[in-house]
Amino acid sequence: MEEQSKQDHLCKDQPHPNRRGPSYPHKMAVLTAGGDAPGMNAAIRSVVRVAGAADIEVVGVQRAFEGLLFGKFTPLPSRAVANIIQRGGTILETSRSEQFRTPGGRARAAENLHYNGIGALVIIGGDGSLQGARALAAESDLKVMFIPASIDNDVPGSDFSIGFDTAVNTALDAIDRIRDTAFAHERLFFVEVMGRDSGFIALAVAIAGGAEAVVIPEMPIEVEELIRRVEESQARGKRSSIVVVSEGPRTGGAMKLANAVDGRLGDAARVVVLGHIQRGGSPTARDRLLASRMGAGAVKAIVDGRLSSLVGEHRGEIIFVPLTEVPEKSRTLDTELIELVTLLSL
Amino acid sequence: MEEQSKQDHLCKDQPHPNRRGPSYPHKMAVLTAGGDAPGMNAAIRSVVRVAGAADIEVVGVQRAFEGLLFGKFTPLPSRAVANIIQRGGTILETSRSEQFRTPGGRARAAENLHYNGIGALVIIGGDGSLQGARALAAESDLKVMFIPASIDNDVPGSDFSIGFDTAVNTALDAIDRIRDTAFAHERLFFVEVMGRDSGFIALAVAIAGGAEAVVIPEMPIEVEELIRRVEESQARGKRSSIVVVSEGPRTGGAMKLANAVDGRLGDAARVVVLGHIQRGGSPTARDRLLASRMGAGAVKAIVDGRLSSLVGEHRGEIIFVPLTEVPEKSRTLDTELIELVTLLSL
Amino acid sequence: MEEQSKQDHLCKDQPHPNRRGPSYPHKMAVLTAGGDAPGMNAAIRSVVRVAGAADIEVVGVQRAFEGLLFGKFTPLPSRAVANIIQRGGTILETSRSEQFRTPGGRARAAENLHYNGIGALVIIGGDGSLQGARALAAESDLKVMFIPASIDNDVPGSDFSIGFDTAVNTALDAIDRIRDTAFAHERLFFVEVMGRDSGFIALAVAIAGGAEAVVIPEMPIEVEELIRRVEESQARGKRSSIVVVSEGPRTGGAMKLANAVDGRLGDAARVVVLGHIQRGGSPTARDRLLASRMGAGAVKAIVDGRLSSLVGEHRGEIIFVPLTEVPEKSRTLDTELIELVTLLSL
Amino acid sequence: MEEQSKQDHLCKDQPHPNRRGPSYPHKMAVLTAGGDAPGMNAAIRSVVRVAGAADIEVVGVQRAFEGLLFGKFTPLPSRAVANIIQRGGTILETSRSEQFRTPGGRARAAENLHYNGIGALVIIGGDGSLQGARALAAESDLKVMFIPASIDNDVPGSDFSIGFDTAVNTALDAIDRIRDTAFAHERLFFVEVMGRDSGFIALAVAIAGGAEAVVIPEMPIEVEELIRRVEESQARGKRSSIVVVSEGPRTGGAMKLANAVDGRLGDAARVVVLGHIQRGGSPTARDRLLASRMGAGAVKAIVDGRLSSLVGEHRGEIIFVPLTEVPEKSRTLDTELIELVTLLSL
Repeated sequence: MEEQSKQDHLCKDQPHPNRRGPSYPHKMAVLTAGGDAPGMNAAIRSVVRVAGAADIEVVGVQRAFEGLLFGKFTPLPSRAVANIIQRGGTILETSRSEQFRTPGGRARAAENLHYNGIGALVIIGGDGSLQGARALAAESDLKVMFIPASIDNDVPGSDFSIGFDTAVNTALDAIDRIRDTAFAHERLFFVEVMGRDSGFIALAVAIAGGAEAVVIPEMPIEVEELIRRVEESQARGKRSSIVVVSEGPRTGGAMKLANAVDGRLGDAARVVVLGHIQRGGSPTARDRLLASRMGAGAVKAIVDGRLSSLVGEHRGEIIFVPLTEVPEKSRTLDTELIELVTLLSL
Repeated sequence: MEEQSKQDHLCKDQPHPNRRGPSYPHKMAVLTAGGDAPGMNAAIRSVVRVAGAADIEVVGVQRAFEGLLFGKFTPLPSRAVANIIQRGGTILETSRSEQFRTPGGRARAAENLHYNGIGALVIIGGDGSLQGARALAAESDLKVMFIPASIDNDVPGSDFSIGFDTAVNTALDAIDRIRDTAFAHERLFFVEVMGRDSGFIALAVAIAGGAEAVVIPEMPIEVEELIRRVEESQARGKRSSIVVVSEGPRTGGAMKLANAVDGRLGDAARVVVLGHIQRGGSPTARDRLLASRMGAGAVKAIVDGRLSSLVGEHRGEIIFVPLTEVPEKSRTLDTELIELVTLLSL
Repeated sequence: MEEQSKQDHLCKDQPHPNRRGPSYPHKMAVLTAGGDAPGMNAAIRSVVRVAGAADIEVVGVQRAFEGLLFGKFTPLPSRAVANIIQRGGTILETSRSEQFRTPGGRARAAENLHYNGIGALVIIGGDGSLQGARALAAESDLKVMFIPASIDNDVPGSDFSIGFDTAVNTALDAIDRIRDTAFAHERLFFVEVMGRDSGFIALAVAIAGGAEAVVIPEMPIEVEELIRRVEESQARGKRSSIVVVSEGPRTGGAMKLANAVDGRLGDAARVVVLGHIQRGGSPTARDRLLASRMGAGAVKAIVDGRLSSLVGEHRGEIIFVPLTEVPEKSRTLDTELIELVTLLSL
Repeated sequence: MEEQSKQDHLCKDQPHPNRRGPSYPHKMAVLTAGGDAPGMNAAIRSVVRVAGAADIEVVGVQRAFEGLLFGKFTPLPSRAVANIIQRGGTILETSRSEQFRTPGGRARAAENLHYNGIGALVIIGGDGSLQGARALAAESDLKVMFIPASIDNDVPGSDFSIGFDTAVNTALDAIDRIRDTAFAHERLFFVEVMGRDSGFIALAVAIAGGAEAVVIPEMPIEVEELIRRVEESQARGKRSSIVVVSEGPRTGGAMKLANAVDGRLGDAARVVVLGHIQRGGSPTARDRLLASRMGAGAVKAIVDGRLSSLVGEHRGEIIFVPLTEVPEKSRTLDTELIELVTLLSL
């Protein structure tokens, strides 16, 4: 009876008549895939602890899909996830696997899981790993729950991905430092942040960092327009300017932009490429909370006998989107924020 | 025409035919009231910059309501708010005023504003200041917009208040440090955080910090129950325990709890009272964004000729709640989070 | 030959003819004792790695002197200390042992070490542990090297102890936050820092934090004098004041001082007691460097056949003070710094 | 003799009968030159406050030597330096001036100072500015005191320069973040830090960050040797490697090294160039203390009638080196540290 009430905490808002039957797996696996993101460890911890409360045994898969293929399974008792909530990276490591992209590879992965008595799998990863999760769920009878973790925040189906808030704050800390020196020297800086295909980080950092302009994949800017905007800002008396640029071919990157304006905006522009420092670091409170809630949600979805789903956050609440219904396309930027950058830099 | 399109950015979702007429004030004031919160400066900056884009002149009121009474007004051109987005505290200062709590005081405040040609006022503050805003709006023809800023996150009408995210991250940083030493010494710590009447900070910090238990005003815990929980946690092999406690008479505070368990849980419990360090510091990205969006929303509401309103965030979006309709009671805690604390500490 | 040259790195400035003979132990132990301090892990890592380069096997002792008595030894290969340099606390834990304070207890500890073939011991700890190190060295034929680690910085024989720099920066971060709110509200704050018997932390924090006054054990201040100084500062136009106070009976602590001035300096004074957050956190670069150098020095001293010594830093260089010659009394404060506090707060 | 002893205590509490005589200037100027460094503001504040205590009026020069030439002087009363000790950058700005490099330019600067009744000048800057200070002192009767501020720590005559400790800690924070992701992915990272002509930052960061290797101008490494070292480290079971590289032509920079090893050490190496984020940020406690002590020392030197000097720190103490005697060559690296990097990465 006590166990019953514990589970009630997690799923009291819907009936789950078959909860006590053999209908949900009593052994599950968890892995982290794709680029690492701060908060992945908090999600692993939550999966393990909440599964423990529901008497589900948890096994960790080392090195993502590669580990599935080669059976790199390791038991994850409650103690194994002590003292990891604050750590960046992932204790399960991550890697890329070409073989898992083939139906044969995925069949082998499912076989390995079955052989070990594992009926459900939680995948914590980004946009690319979502494809793998979808295929694995479609081609096997495994219950697959997907938790979006990506500093780029570009996983469809969820308003936020784990790691985004930390990455933005890390980049913001760098911007704050750069402004100190930009102001001291009256200089123009181009700061490149992550987000090859989406401007979420760049936009948030630009607003929060008080940047003069932002260049993002969704809305590339003409060099002449950029020059005009910086000149206007200088004409209004601004003595230093920071332009935030998303990485990648669609914007051209910070270095290319700096070269393009060279000599036309006073002193030589400086370039800072933040790169991989945005991936690491202790996760923020928001990322730890989000990871904890999503981890609990994934276990709850398994206990409730839901279809294989993406466990996301939408409008502040945990939601479950069946993997077959997750949209293909990434989320789009909020136009409210795009307009704010310009207004606030006036 | 260009000005027209600029304003469109802010309020394109509704018609506002009378925008160019005398229908909205062309001079407004902004003040910060109550306890200071990180992000207040970001909100001031946003008000000033967005008002500037709408050709509204902005005046800063020093020392909150006291400044209204004594006419401590200072012009806030765009340059005056440069380089403040990252600063804690408030450049306008804050203070308490008994006189403003009387109708006579408020009449004098309104008179001072009128005398200076100021037709609208943005108040950035907490629960207490909301009462003042409501009264001033009811008793005068001033347009009053209220932006919730409170590390306690207990302002009714908005899911989040400015400063909450920063305060939680500050307290979390402290918890992370304490766990280092708790673990090294196998100790029990009681950590007191802010939130006299609400457990928002305590709950978020407890989950994100991996605490063993949380004691909050909304749900005080029996000492015996607390002892039982810590003992259980020790029985499961945990070598250190952290209990997060909201300040104030309803929980009794960390010191009282530590004394109550004294001698019953191994070594003497240690007490840490985080206190005012939770109020300061450079705001997080989330608080700067929220402040920037709310500041823009307040100006937009004035331009659009809305009723005097609270400018809040609900389910991720900026909302406007007429001051006459803001509920009296504070928001309640999410039970999902309360349950998570226990599940995750297992 | 290659090994020879490696050792040369560490001790090339003196002859050590007996280095290759049986004259130095080829198995050593390391432990952390007393209050934990950030950088202890960096010191452990350095001992292990440098000993490895000299072909000395290293064993970790869990739980300080208690572990010596009960033989809680664990091998520490090079991999065991990977990824710990940045962690606060100590992977070896620490504890207090009454039994070790008796000659019988120490004899048993020495016996345990001999039984395990361990001829040398590195103790990383504070003032109290130094007494234990001294007694153990005097009463046995063990080679004992002592590395000072204490956030209070009060270990005699060394200008600096591991952990001090981190603790000062942690306290400083808190002061910076408090000043934000002190300034916003025009308030008086008493901030209590660690250092029961010495004002090192308080003095450094007061100068670096721009405090108005400091109260330390070495130089308690009269309440009237303190009031006079704050009043003077207010008369000069300062709108907020921060007084840094060392904890403990000699100063009375922040709360007692706040009560003593109550009602005499405007609004009620606020009290912040930083407490144990000063012990934790990732060590600063300086503490990691100091710990790495002292750890290397301790191994070098063993290889060189030195007498049992304290491995300290004096005037920027690593020094070796025979344990029999370490002064009893703590180091005294630099009067230059005491005067600076007053001058700078003008 | 009497005057000599006065130096001990900054002359506040003793009589110094000749203070009001013509023996030392009663109006002085302060400027910051060259690249900005965290702690410059703390030095300005200290100069102003300590001068105030000695009844010397202080004037700030905007934009370094350019400001000297064009008389950009602004009074700096005590209040003007309130609340700046924690800020990065410099409130006085900095810039480069070709004209000041000519004797004619310097004559004009001296003339401007005389015309304004300014008899002494404190220059806070780096290696390049030291030349200007020296020339100005030699060619005029101004009293010139030079305070070394340079994140590269390469100013001759002082063991440490203001800003170095902060820059090292900033770079270290980045390294800690990168290691999270390096470990998660088993990757090789090249991290480029500042220090075109000197490896001080790189060396400190490499040791404190637990890097596998360091490449510095003073001791460039062969690519083959670097590959051998990383391979050895991988053979010992290390799954990720970080190589810290000083910027500039003498090492070739991180990108060039990464290209050189490309394809020979497993997966593609990643490159992170920390760049200007190392210049900014709130100064560490050590940098604020150093700046405060040097600022006080500079004023004391003027009051004491010393020759124009560099105010440095040597072996923990403030020293005064006459500008004519400051060595031309930069300080050299400590070989103890160079050896430590290799030993500790084993």
